[in-house]
Amino acid sequence: MGVVIAVDAMGGDTAPQTVVEGVRAAVASAELSVLLVGDAAVLGPLVGDTERIEIRHAASVVRQDADPAESVRRDGDSSIVVAARAVRAGEAQALVSAGHSGATLAAAALIIGRAPGVIRPGLAAVLPGSARPTVLMDAGANMDTTPQQLLQFAHLGSAFAEHLLHIDAPTCGLLTIGEEPGKGDARAKEAHALLAADGGLIYRGSVEGRDLLTSRVDVIVSDGFTGNVALKTCEGTAREAFLRVRGEATGLRATLGALLLRPALRRVRDSLDPDTYGGGHLLGTNAVTVVAHGSARPRGIAQACRYAAEGVERDLVGAIAARIR
Amino acid sequence: MGVVIAVDAMGGDTAPQTVVEGVRAAVASAELSVLLVGDAAVLGPLVGDTERIEIRHAASVVRQDADPAESVRRDGDSSIVVAARAVRAGEAQALVSAGHSGATLAAAALIIGRAPGVIRPGLAAVLPGSARPTVLMDAGANMDTTPQQLLQFAHLGSAFAEHLLHIDAPTCGLLTIGEEPGKGDARAKEAHALLAADGGLIYRGSVEGRDLLTSRVDVIVSDGFTGNVALKTCEGTAREAFLRVRGEATGLRATLGALLLRPALRRVRDSLDPDTYGGGHLLGTNAVTVVAHGSARPRGIAQACRYAAEGVERDLVGAIAARIR
Repeated sequence: MGVVIAVDAMGGDTAPQTVVEGVRAAVASAELSVLLVGDAAVLGPLVGDTERIEIRHAASVVRQDADPAESVRRDGDSSIVVAARAVRAGEAQALVSAGHSGATLAAAALIIGRAPGVIRPGLAAVLPGSARPTVLMDAGANMDTTPQQLLQFAHLGSAFAEHLLHIDAPTCGLLTIGEEPGKGDARAKEAHALLAADGGLIYRGSVEGRDLLTSRVDVIVSDGFTGNVALKTCEGTAREAFLRVRGEATGLRATLGALLLRPALRRVRDSLDPDTYGGGHLLGTNAVTVVAHGSARPRGIAQACRYAAEGVERDLVGAIAARIR
Repeated sequence: MGVVIAVDAMGGDTAPQTVVEGVRAAVASAELSVLLVGDAAVLGPLVGDTERIEIRHAASVVRQDADPAESVRRDGDSSIVVAARAVRAGEAQALVSAGHSGATLAAAALIIGRAPGVIRPGLAAVLPGSARPTVLMDAGANMDTTPQQLLQFAHLGSAFAEHLLHIDAPTCGLLTIGEEPGKGDARAKEAHALLAADGGLIYRGSVEGRDLLTSRVDVIVSDGFTGNVALKTCEGTAREAFLRVRGEATGLRATLGALLLRPALRRVRDSLDPDTYGGGHLLGTNAVTVVAHGSARPRGIAQACRYAAEGVERDLVGAIAARIR
């Protein structure tokens, strides 16, 4: 049956329908099975007797306004906790959730656990670079990051780029405010020195916000605060640019132009679509964990499952452990 | 002759030609005069006997790779230092430069000086929001910002929005990673408490990277590191989206579509053009200072001069002093 993925069925803006559709697509298109965790009474009719999807009952769901760590510690019956426990028990090899992202990170860190030597797991986002995908690491899992954590993020992100994005000898750069090594805040300066001195990295120096989509480096290293702001700025700007094009395309001439250009515009919009890589990948835990977007469509959920399965097959956890050791 | 603007003629990627063209356009279109500072032998023939442009000789120019503060302290003959001194001496009321932005900030802070009560001046960038312009403050002048500085940035940015962007009762928000007040790094949490407690602000809580262009608030408060990354991410993503549309518009159908849609696409691109507001506005010094983009075209230089003149006429420095005191 190949890899088993524990999927939180109750997480996401349109759960569980979207999640069920997504895992159906995933098991139909890849060698994987799904342990679907959530309200069995609701999930049963939705899933039917789909092959390779097993339902595991969980009585509750973490609410979007809940405190992440507290909800994981207090509510042992929530779908994300039951799913994470199944991974820890070895019933599944990876975790996927489109629910409360903080709770997913907390469940992975607290229940599945950190890999040996990892200071704090971090969230890798895959950006649609012009020439090839770019890993942004950390995209928001950690606040108040230290320079030592940034160095480790460079290794985690490089392992991910190599093993899951199939990039040979991935390069990395530090997200800061100018190309000169002396520019940036105190943390960036210290991190730059650590990154430059590490023989295990292919470090290309500083990169700026304008380099997120230009494929200048394969891994962009950032603290989680700045990384999250940059990721959301990138997504928001792309969305806004397309909204404005639509808003300006009035009158006969422009309407006709937009119609003719639609396939091209759609390809560009798709190239900037966060669903393409299934969401964020938590790196540094003892099992592959994919944090899908709350707004993910079935395609995004299916991608998250496929990436999770590939992460297990390519032993991403082992590759990271070998780099960190 | 109205307001006199001291303009560094030697700063910018295509100086002094672009700067001269820009100041010519500025004096032709607004009630202002320019004290144009730079190599008189080069500037003389370019300017000719244009009315309301006076040339002031400066023997050198700060190189792009120079250390900002050191270059300002050491080289008293550089165009930016001579221009800033003219402002301090009262020969001009505002400073505009498209040169080394760090050197411009240093010259303004060290020679023109901080306004009383201001901890550190900050750089306001004007973002092209969907409904009206949005101020991003600080866009990169200060690293390692404190929560107290962030509170002051909210006031500086609000004064700017009100007096120069003509926004009545401007609202402000704190750039962080989620809408809930508890989200963000330690600095953001402390700043949130200060902002929420200040009766002189119209504080709307947290905003995210995706809110940069949505006109959700009028002033987005940020530390200079994160603000600069966000600003460049926004600019870079918009540029990349248009490059991709152009790259995808191949074949007869799409080429025709692009041709018909061109005016609409151009309007959108223009709406996202950083030249529209002339660059960044340094707030908290004793005289209006505009830091134009190094890549500004004549239009950007002219806009910078007009904004600088309006800042003087509307007594932006006095308005800020009244808020800070």
